[in-house]
Amino acid sequence: MTSLPAGATTDDPDVLASYATDRATFCPGGRARALVRARSVQDVVETLQWAHENGVPVVPQGARTGLSGGANAIDGCVLLNVSKLDQILEIDVEEQIAVVQPGVINATLAAAVAEKGLYYPPDPGSKDISSIGGNVATNAGGMCCLKYGVTGDFVRGLQVVVADGRVMRTGRRTAKGVAGYDLTHLFVGSEGTLGVITEVTVALRPAAARPLTAVAFFDTAIDAGRTVADYLGAGFRPVVLELMDRPSIEAISKLQDLGFPPGVGAVLIAQSDVGASELTAFEVSARRCAATDVIVADDPAEGDLLMQGRRLAGLAFDEYPACLVDDVCVPRRHLAALIEGVEQIGEEYGVLVACVGHAGDGNMHPAVLFDHSQADAAQRAFGAIMRLGLDLGGTITGEHGVGLLKREWLARELDEAALWAHHQLKNAFDPRGILNPGRVINSTPGGRADADRRSS
Amino acid sequence: MTSLPAGATTDDPDVLASYATDRATFCPGGRARALVRARSVQDVVETLQWAHENGVPVVPQGARTGLSGGANAIDGCVLLNVSKLDQILEIDVEEQIAVVQPGVINATLAAAVAEKGLYYPPDPGSKDISSIGGNVATNAGGMCCLKYGVTGDFVRGLQVVVADGRVMRTGRRTAKGVAGYDLTHLFVGSEGTLGVITEVTVALRPAAARPLTAVAFFDTAIDAGRTVADYLGAGFRPVVLELMDRPSIEAISKLQDLGFPPGVGAVLIAQSDVGASELTAFEVSARRCAATDVIVADDPAEGDLLMQGRRLAGLAFDEYPACLVDDVCVPRRHLAALIEGVEQIGEEYGVLVACVGHAGDGNMHPAVLFDHSQADAAQRAFGAIMRLGLDLGGTITGEHGVGLLKREWLARELDEAALWAHHQLKNAFDPRGILNPGRVINSTPGGRADADRRSS
Repeated sequence: MTSLPAGATTDDPDVLASYATDRATFCPGGRARALVRARSVQDVVETLQWAHENGVPVVPQGARTGLSGGANAIDGCVLLNVSKLDQILEIDVEEQIAVVQPGVINATLAAAVAEKGLYYPPDPGSKDISSIGGNVATNAGGMCCLKYGVTGDFVRGLQVVVADGRVMRTGRRTAKGVAGYDLTHLFVGSEGTLGVITEVTVALRPAAARPLTAVAFFDTAIDAGRTVADYLGAGFRPVVLELMDRPSIEAISKLQDLGFPPGVGAVLIAQSDVGASELTAFEVSARRCAATDVIVADDPAEGDLLMQGRRLAGLAFDEYPACLVDDVCVPRRHLAALIEGVEQIGEEYGVLVACVGHAGDGNMHPAVLFDHSQADAAQRAFGAIMRLGLDLGGTITGEHGVGLLKREWLARELDEAALWAHHQLKNAFDPRGILNPGRVINSTPGGRADADRRSS
Repeated sequence: MTSLPAGATTDDPDVLASYATDRATFCPGGRARALVRARSVQDVVETLQWAHENGVPVVPQGARTGLSGGANAIDGCVLLNVSKLDQILEIDVEEQIAVVQPGVINATLAAAVAEKGLYYPPDPGSKDISSIGGNVATNAGGMCCLKYGVTGDFVRGLQVVVADGRVMRTGRRTAKGVAGYDLTHLFVGSEGTLGVITEVTVALRPAAARPLTAVAFFDTAIDAGRTVADYLGAGFRPVVLELMDRPSIEAISKLQDLGFPPGVGAVLIAQSDVGASELTAFEVSARRCAATDVIVADDPAEGDLLMQGRRLAGLAFDEYPACLVDDVCVPRRHLAALIEGVEQIGEEYGVLVACVGHAGDGNMHPAVLFDHSQADAAQRAFGAIMRLGLDLGGTITGEHGVGLLKREWLARELDEAALWAHHQLKNAFDPRGILNPGRVINSTPGGRADADRRSS
């Protein structure tokens, strides 16, 4: 007879309610039956053993900073929160790796390794509040991905508790290794639907030089988008290349004076950790694409201030009655077309869309800003943005994940065989369908699923 | 009624025999029933449809340069060779990606993108003869992995034909994307056991500067190993850091005068594409670890000659009556212990073991050199080297793959749950067990397999 871990479990309705959602808009949370705040891997094991035996859904959670509803409660589920598993178990300077529990906050890890002269690059916008487990489960991106890669590029190995409570090690500590299937990257980005991550081995880099920053001003976001294609197409790879359009700048300026010229239509912020020549080339591209001015910050502190402003976008959008943040990623040459199309979508649906994002990766976060009377139009605009991303040869999600919010859209991005593969994987790892059911894909435990129905 | 593609199929016994093996030692090939030389994706589709319907094993092949027997014929199988699918379909300079068919030779792709100012870094020792499909199927490494990563790090997306003949697209063209499970990296390194790769989208980099080269001489390979840990532990990340021990140097010197001082016990070759300071630091580390001399090549051509010498190792070992090339990868701090242990294994089993490899990654290729009277001892030495790699916290294969040669050893590296996961994956993607059966894992179609038997 198994049971939920007694010391770690609560069914207090107020507590359950406070753990019911992540930060996604339009994704209501259900009523959980219990919350397990795991303090050990054994707590995770016992929870899954019990849930597997009893066919009860389990929703793995960390810091609940996700934007797709992937950590929201399901009616009758057990919320399995791992944020108390928050120890940095090891930082190995010589091998340039760290081993951490899933609840470690991203910025805490980054600071701890920086003290030892090392660098953990993945820096999602949520880095001060999101945890490594969730970063891995969603394959989170960030600003420095352009040069250094996303979370998954830094994951060497995992400890995972699979659906029936067995503990599994994947991957390795070594720099290379090809022994068997790449289980590690199957769990990266699987959003809690294939197993629960209880330990992560990440690769680190030697510390990089403190970056220099440049900012270019434009009359239109389309010119900024053209600059991105021109600059990167010439073979440069800066650390950061971020775009903010007029509505974003206006929203952020309400929180902090950015010191931008009045009436600016868009800005690009570039950072380089290899020297001024990379930023000189940026200036050349920007001026070729009609920049009205380009400023290279002499003082790194000035650069920090600019980046701090960019990072305020999320908070700035929260000042609006409601906000739906999208996350499309397109080939860079289509960035200008994406920006233009997003502006048209805003006009068509009568909502304000602010466009910020990781322009260098083609990964934009058009944020639909609206009041509650516009909820329908906002949701349709949100969908139209994903449609546009797909039409431009891109993806519905560059870094936020599918969760609940984009599940129906995933089926439009994948072909029939790939959907089949998703269902095969889900059934192979979670035959009773207890792990975050209904997230990522619309699964039916052990049996036929939406992909099959479509073709029958 | 399906059939094998008529125009592409042969059952000529001489032809079949000539396609029966890759380059692995001690891995005999079986007798195939037919060879399909696919000239189109449709040929691959028809072959798999027929094989799936008739329950016939299919062995996918490319250039057959693998070292683990993964492309060897199985009795009664269809050999499905994709080396005629050899077109570079697209090089997109602006997006820095290429789309290629699996039969494109690695060096052909590298040269084609170099002409456009781009760089495809993965450079397995076989780069002049191995093809991208096989590089992906084995997740091949190489010398430049130390700085730039292995094949899998450059794969953005695939076209795969799955077991029943359906065509599937995985991944993306964009810089980022997290829509659904990472199917791409599940096929990378799966050695033809989950599907047949028919198209690969790879990421490229801007061209790097031509590297500078330094070489350090040591009395013992152990000192060379200590240098690696010292140098990289200090935060440097050169492009190349290769080691050759005395038996390797002696073997290579028979083919080409390396110009080394007489009696040298080991060398390290370092290459940097960021400037001389990285090589100065290398010299400091090497001298700290008892290097007898360090030379920085003033002329890039000198460096090319040194690297060419290093690349002759494989040919040099082929001069011996027989050779078993191992491929263990250990944490760098244990490199000296690995080298010392390998020397002891050679003595214990009375065989010559030459140690070369990608020292910077901790990935060594101890080559057991022997004559046929020593075959038993050689195989035991080969196993003892893998045991040593595992005992040092490493892996049985850093880049060559499992294939047939190391299948029994994979079960020693993985834990019980990970073995279970392998069988679940195999059954999920290949329920009839027709895809390269018996490679990587010892599978039983649709049913219980070695992992299950072990626990029953």
